[in-house]
Amino acid sequence: MINVQTLKGFRDFLPKEAKKRQYVLDALKKVFESYGFEPLETPSLEYEEVLTGKYGQEGEKLMYKFKDNGDRNVALRYDQTVPLARVVAQYQNDLPIPFKRYQMQNVWRADNTQKGRYREFLQVDADIVGSYSPLADIEILQCINSAMNALKFKEFSILVNSRKVFEIFGSTNTNQITQILDKEDKIGKDGVLKLLNQLLASDNEALRIYDMIKNLKPVQIPSGLKEILNKGKELKLNLSPMFFLARGLDYYTDLIFEIKIPNYKGGSVAGGGRYDNLIGVFAGRDIPAVGFSFGFDRLMEAMEELDLLPKDLSKNNVFVAFSNSDLQEKALAITTQLRNKGINAEYYLEDVTLEKQLKYADKKQIPYCIIVEENNLALKNMEERTQENLTLEEIIKKLSK
Amino acid sequence: MINVQTLKGFRDFLPKEAKKRQYVLDALKKVFESYGFEPLETPSLEYEEVLTGKYGQEGEKLMYKFKDNGDRNVALRYDQTVPLARVVAQYQNDLPIPFKRYQMQNVWRADNTQKGRYREFLQVDADIVGSYSPLADIEILQCINSAMNALKFKEFSILVNSRKVFEIFGSTNTNQITQILDKEDKIGKDGVLKLLNQLLASDNEALRIYDMIKNLKPVQIPSGLKEILNKGKELKLNLSPMFFLARGLDYYTDLIFEIKIPNYKGGSVAGGGRYDNLIGVFAGRDIPAVGFSFGFDRLMEAMEELDLLPKDLSKNNVFVAFSNSDLQEKALAITTQLRNKGINAEYYLEDVTLEKQLKYADKKQIPYCIIVEENNLALKNMEERTQENLTLEEIIKKLSK
Repeated sequence: MINVQTLKGFRDFLPKEAKKRQYVLDALKKVFESYGFEPLETPSLEYEEVLTGKYGQEGEKLMYKFKDNGDRNVALRYDQTVPLARVVAQYQNDLPIPFKRYQMQNVWRADNTQKGRYREFLQVDADIVGSYSPLADIEILQCINSAMNALKFKEFSILVNSRKVFEIFGSTNTNQITQILDKEDKIGKDGVLKLLNQLLASDNEALRIYDMIKNLKPVQIPSGLKEILNKGKELKLNLSPMFFLARGLDYYTDLIFEIKIPNYKGGSVAGGGRYDNLIGVFAGRDIPAVGFSFGFDRLMEAMEELDLLPKDLSKNNVFVAFSNSDLQEKALAITTQLRNKGINAEYYLEDVTLEKQLKYADKKQIPYCIIVEENNLALKNMEERTQENLTLEEIIKKLSK
Repeated sequence: MINVQTLKGFRDFLPKEAKKRQYVLDALKKVFESYGFEPLETPSLEYEEVLTGKYGQEGEKLMYKFKDNGDRNVALRYDQTVPLARVVAQYQNDLPIPFKRYQMQNVWRADNTQKGRYREFLQVDADIVGSYSPLADIEILQCINSAMNALKFKEFSILVNSRKVFEIFGSTNTNQITQILDKEDKIGKDGVLKLLNQLLASDNEALRIYDMIKNLKPVQIPSGLKEILNKGKELKLNLSPMFFLARGLDYYTDLIFEIKIPNYKGGSVAGGGRYDNLIGVFAGRDIPAVGFSFGFDRLMEAMEELDLLPKDLSKNNVFVAFSNSDLQEKALAITTQLRNKGINAEYYLEDVTLEKQLKYADKKQIPYCIIVEENNLALKNMEERTQENLTLEEIIKKLSK
């Protein structure tokens, strides 16, 4: 056997995993579409110049760039936001505004691989482009709230803040201060104070800033955020203000949020916010936008850990086994009838023993087997290891439920 | 505005197109799963050595190859068959055998772009790995037949042949003869005879070979193909024997087939066959396989031309319009209620005139609008341009149908 391997950070998804992913994506699509978001797909490869200069130095380093056969400088999709900006500029007269799109495509980053970090991974984004209204922010928060409910997360909160909160420092260091405050949930008060002191060379100033955020006065809450919080309450969204929250990306301009799941230690499974200066980069004018992105691998991990993935992703499946070779033909006929009734059915394609057939069905985690005998059919529940003799009509009725 | 463009041969799919593609993929998935095929995903990038040497000189030239940041020679997925072969070798102890998988992923080929030929395109494959049984061939033919029915193609036939048919020539030139005969449907008898004569330098021999295929005797039909044709008749599959059919790819070993749609001139939308020597390339032993591949772009084109794509892909969608600014809040409340009832609903996020709202709904091809007025709701059918006053309950009932 030749030594075969996949590249580090790249993954095969065998059927068991692929089906789980499919289940989650289908559930998310359904929610997004219930909000009027529509699917968008962009190419995997773009001109390098479309992507460069948009992700900072760090991003530039991680991008998969190469020369194609026509000597063009090309790069693999690094995220779904810059391609969205290109699409908005390129088709601006054809798109409905606000443009509400969702996108579920792979992105590639030549990052160090480590637990939960891959070089090819799926992003799941939904964004509203073209509206400054706080109702657009609300729509995004309501949508992500519905998505979490649809995935059956029982406990979660959407931590919300606004980048405008940090304007109260009136400091030239605001960006650095912000990034330090963002670490509060990881390094605590002492850690934050230490870093602030290093930056500002003043214990007093560090403490003043920490306390200002810790005890933010209602009057210091930006009016947009207030409106969002009020409306969120009315709509029964799981919003919690969290004024230390800053999020890493520079491009947010106002609302920022992250999903927190108390029983999952892997970090935030989704986040987003308003970014009013980025989408217009190709159109040459400001275009407001607000949206969110699911870290799909983390989301899958959280769902696994919290046991939220249905056990019965093959619940509609049945295996038709023949008890002797002469009955293989009959098994095919029954399989065909079941398929015609909308039941996922298969039989064994080679002439093997009943035992071997059932082993195959078990390996595929098919929940039911029909055992075809000379004069009757038995329906076997593979998990409960029970079986009963039934007519084909009775079996169809039972499996169609 | 910066000049933005996509690479030649690469496409954006805006919502209208993306939704149509989604509809077709969902329909195909459903059929594949009803046959017990399960999804598989493999990485976009592989070690170059995994892919090279498998596609012939022509393929090699068209492959997207480059050195990654770690100086590894890598290549983008060129098809889904070689990655399947790698998966079968790499996980051979974990996979159920026969392994029935479907795969719907993009592949990349740096081919000359022309009408209907792209550099990034979706392939839709289903294959059965690990069975020599003609029942596996039948399963594949039955599945593709069901897929065509599910997509609502009324007239189509599955042209079938076997590579073994060509063994009757007993010629050292069999491969070249085969490829000439394959052109019969395009260049006709005269064209074929001319090419055969060029190859064999004998008018008589050319005619003998042409006639042999044209008037193939029942006894010359390989027994496997006979069994397939008989079983196909029993299962009411649209099979037509077509002994000139050879298909381009070298790797087929027995059954070959192509879908022919009489009213579509773009060529075959799908094809496949048995290839018993390829999948084992990494495992170091023969592993039989039979499968098919849809040319997804051609399939979409055929469905467009034959008007098989549903008009009502947004049939469950409703737009909630407010007749004056004060009612925008109420529009949000109604939208939320509709979404909770499983209806895809949206309202306009900015405070604009009713006219502008309806224009947006029209642009998104939303079939129904609810117009929220002070004391009543009107449901407007956007296509028929009719409207009636209804209660929210009545509207929900009507839209849930």
